[in-house]
Amino acid sequence: MSLEIIKEKVAQAVDILNEKNIDMWVTFVQETKVLKDPIMDMTVGDHSTWKSAFIINKDGDTTAIVGDMELENFVKSGVYKNIVGYLKSFKEPFVEYVKKKNPEKIAINFSVNSVLSDGLTHGMYLLLMDYLKGTGYENKIVSAEEIISPLRGRKSDKELAIMQEAVHETLKIFDMVTDYIKPGLSEKDIAEYVLNVTKGKGFGLAWDEETCPAVFTGPNPSNPHSGPTDRKIEKGHLINMDFGIYYKGYCSDLQRTWYVLNDGETKAPDAVQKGFDVIKDSIQMVADAIKPGVTGVEMDDIARNYIIKNGYPEYPHGLGHQVGKEVHDGGAGLFPRWEKYGNAPFLKLEERQVFTIEPRLPVEGYGVSTLEEEVYLTKAGCKFISNPQKELILV
Amino acid sequence: MSLEIIKEKVAQAVDILNEKNIDMWVTFVQETKVLKDPIMDMTVGDHSTWKSAFIINKDGDTTAIVGDMELENFVKSGVYKNIVGYLKSFKEPFVEYVKKKNPEKIAINFSVNSVLSDGLTHGMYLLLMDYLKGTGYENKIVSAEEIISPLRGRKSDKELAIMQEAVHETLKIFDMVTDYIKPGLSEKDIAEYVLNVTKGKGFGLAWDEETCPAVFTGPNPSNPHSGPTDRKIEKGHLINMDFGIYYKGYCSDLQRTWYVLNDGETKAPDAVQKGFDVIKDSIQMVADAIKPGVTGVEMDDIARNYIIKNGYPEYPHGLGHQVGKEVHDGGAGLFPRWEKYGNAPFLKLEERQVFTIEPRLPVEGYGVSTLEEEVYLTKAGCKFISNPQKELILV
Repeated sequence: MSLEIIKEKVAQAVDILNEKNIDMWVTFVQETKVLKDPIMDMTVGDHSTWKSAFIINKDGDTTAIVGDMELENFVKSGVYKNIVGYLKSFKEPFVEYVKKKNPEKIAINFSVNSVLSDGLTHGMYLLLMDYLKGTGYENKIVSAEEIISPLRGRKSDKELAIMQEAVHETLKIFDMVTDYIKPGLSEKDIAEYVLNVTKGKGFGLAWDEETCPAVFTGPNPSNPHSGPTDRKIEKGHLINMDFGIYYKGYCSDLQRTWYVLNDGETKAPDAVQKGFDVIKDSIQMVADAIKPGVTGVEMDDIARNYIIKNGYPEYPHGLGHQVGKEVHDGGAGLFPRWEKYGNAPFLKLEERQVFTIEPRLPVEGYGVSTLEEEVYLTKAGCKFISNPQKELILV
Repeated sequence: MSLEIIKEKVAQAVDILNEKNIDMWVTFVQETKVLKDPIMDMTVGDHSTWKSAFIINKDGDTTAIVGDMELENFVKSGVYKNIVGYLKSFKEPFVEYVKKKNPEKIAINFSVNSVLSDGLTHGMYLLLMDYLKGTGYENKIVSAEEIISPLRGRKSDKELAIMQEAVHETLKIFDMVTDYIKPGLSEKDIAEYVLNVTKGKGFGLAWDEETCPAVFTGPNPSNPHSGPTDRKIEKGHLINMDFGIYYKGYCSDLQRTWYVLNDGETKAPDAVQKGFDVIKDSIQMVADAIKPGVTGVEMDDIARNYIIKNGYPEYPHGLGHQVGKEVHDGGAGLFPRWEKYGNAPFLKLEERQVFTIEPRLPVEGYGVSTLEEEVYLTKAGCKFISNPQKELILV
C-alpha cells in the first residue's frame, strides 16, 4: 500500500473519530511479523517488533510510541506526526501520553462481530488494562469497531480506482481461461494455467494458492472452499471458477460460469440455461435494491428467496461480503440471519462500500451455476465494478 | 511444514497436556487469512474461514469443529481424528462437545508474556466466554502458555535436523558474501546480492525483506532494526550482517562481522580486535553456562556484565531469543530484567530449546562488533548449531 493512501486513511480516521465522537483510537501491537492486527496495513504500513501504540486522536494529533531501535523507520515514513521511542518500558510513555491527552473515550481493536476490527489479542488487552489500572482511563475503553468498519468500508476515490483496475485485470485472466478451456483438461490444469498467467503478470493472489483459483467441473463437484482436483472437463458439463488477485494492496474476487457444448448442441440445455438465468437475475435484483441504509440480510433474502422460489436449494453461504485490502473485508456483509455471522447481517450499508454478490445453485446432472460480481455503493444505489456476466459462456 | 511434523507436534501436545495435567486445549480461530493464531502452522497446517476449534485432549482425543464447506480439507489432512462440520452455528456443536468431554481445565491461547501463546483475539475470547456462559466451564479456563511454550521450545529430532540444515545453508550464503565484499560497494549492494542468492536457491527470508539482510558499515551505523543504506564500504571499517532464511517451515538467524584492512594493514587494529574478542568470548562464556534449569536473565547478565566490565556500553536489546518456526519463537528468552520483556527473562530454560546469542558493542571510529550464533540445549549444556565465528573475517 502506498504511503500516500496510508496518510489519506489516517486523515479519514480523524474525520470518523469526530463523526463518532471518540477522542482517541489506540492500535496496540507487538511482533507484528508473528501476528499482525489487520489494521496495521491500512494505518501504519510498517512492522513493529516491540510493543508499540499507534494513536490517532479526534483533535488531529497522531502519535506512535515504538521501540527505540525502530524509531528511525517510523520517522522516515512520516505517517505519524510524533514518534516517541522507548528502550525498557512501553508502559511509562504510554500512560504519560494518555494522561496528557485526557480522553473521554478510548477505542481499542476488539470486536465480537468483525475480525477486521478484532486485531488486539486477549493477552495484549489484559496488559493494556493493567497499564491503565487506577488511572480511571481503564473505564473509558470502547470497541474500535465503529471506527474500523467505516474506515475500511468507505473507499476513497484512489482506493476505488485501484479496485477497479484489479477487477479489470482479473477479468482479462478469465477471458484467457475462456480461450484455454477444452474437454480433457483437468481442474488442476486450469488452476495451473491461471497461476502461471497471474505470476507472469506480477500480480499476487487474493487468497491462498490451494484454492485460488478454485475450479469446479461437472455434477456434484467438491464444495465451494475446496481446491481443484484431477476431474476432467467433459462435454455437457458446467465449469465454474472462483478467483481473485492481490493488486497494489487490494483484492478482487470474481466467479464465472462456462458450459461445454455436447456434440450436436448449439446452445445449452434448458435446465442449464434456467440455472444460469436464475443466478444472473437474482444478482440484478439485488443490484437494483442495494443502497446505503438497507441491511445485508435484506439483500441476502432477495436472492435466497428467488432461488428457492425457482425450485433450487438455498446456497450454503452468505450472498456476498465486502472486499478491500482483504478479500473478506469490512464489517457489514450480505449475510443470512445465521448465528455464526453475529451482527454483520444487520448493519446498515454505507456509501462507497464494495460488495461481492455471489449466489449459487446446483443444476442436476450438469454442475453448478454461480457468478460473483463486485459492486460499490453510491448515494442512491450501486454501480458494478465488474462487467457482469449476462450470458452463459459456451465452450 | 510437513504433515508428518504437524502430526508429531499434536502427539507431543498430548504428552504436554498429561505432564501439565490440563484436560483440554482449544485453539479457537476464524478468517485465518486475515489474522492467524501463530500456533495454527504448528498444530493445524490448514486455514479456516469460519469459526473453527482445534481441540486436543489429555486423553488423546483430537477433534476439529469447522465450517461445513471446509470439512473435506481437514478430513484429507488427517491431523485431527474427528472432524465435525457445521453450517449455521458454531456454538452448538462446540458447547455440546465440551459438555461431553467434561474437562476440569480448558486451556485457550492467551498470554501476557508470550506473543506465540497469545493468538486468541479479545473479541474471540469474549465470544468463547459467551458460548460457555452458565455451563460452568467458563470458570475452568486457563492460559495455554504452559502448553505452547514447551511445545514450540522442545524441538523434536526432525525439527532440529531441519534447523541445522537451515543454519548450514545460511552460513554458505555468508561465505559467498565474504567473497563478494569489497570497498566501494554499498550496504544496499550487499543486501541485493544476498537477496538474489537466497531467492535463487529457493529459500524464503526469516523476516521482512526491508531488513533481511540488515547490513551495517563503519562508525555510527543505523540502529540494529534498520534497513541497508547507500553508505559505502571503506577501508578501515567494520561490516556486520544480520540475516536468516526460512527453510522447510523453520527460520535461521545469524550475524557475522568483517573488517576491511586499511592500506598497509595485515591485521585489524588492536581496538577492533579487542572489540571482536570481547564479543566472541562473551558468547563462549554464555555457551559454557547455559543449560536446562538456568534462567535467561542469568545468561544475559553474563554477557552484559562482561561487556560493560571491558569498558563498552551495554547492548540496547536482549542477549538472545528462541528460534523455530518463527525467528523470534518460544516463551523464555535470554533477556534483561526490563519491563517490556514481561516474565520471559525469568523462565527456566529447557532441553531442546534453540537460542540465539547475539551481543553487540560499538568500536569507536570503526563500526560495530557483533556476532549471532545459534545453540540448542542438551541435557547438561548446549551445542552450537552454527559453526561459531572465532576470528574476525578480514577483507
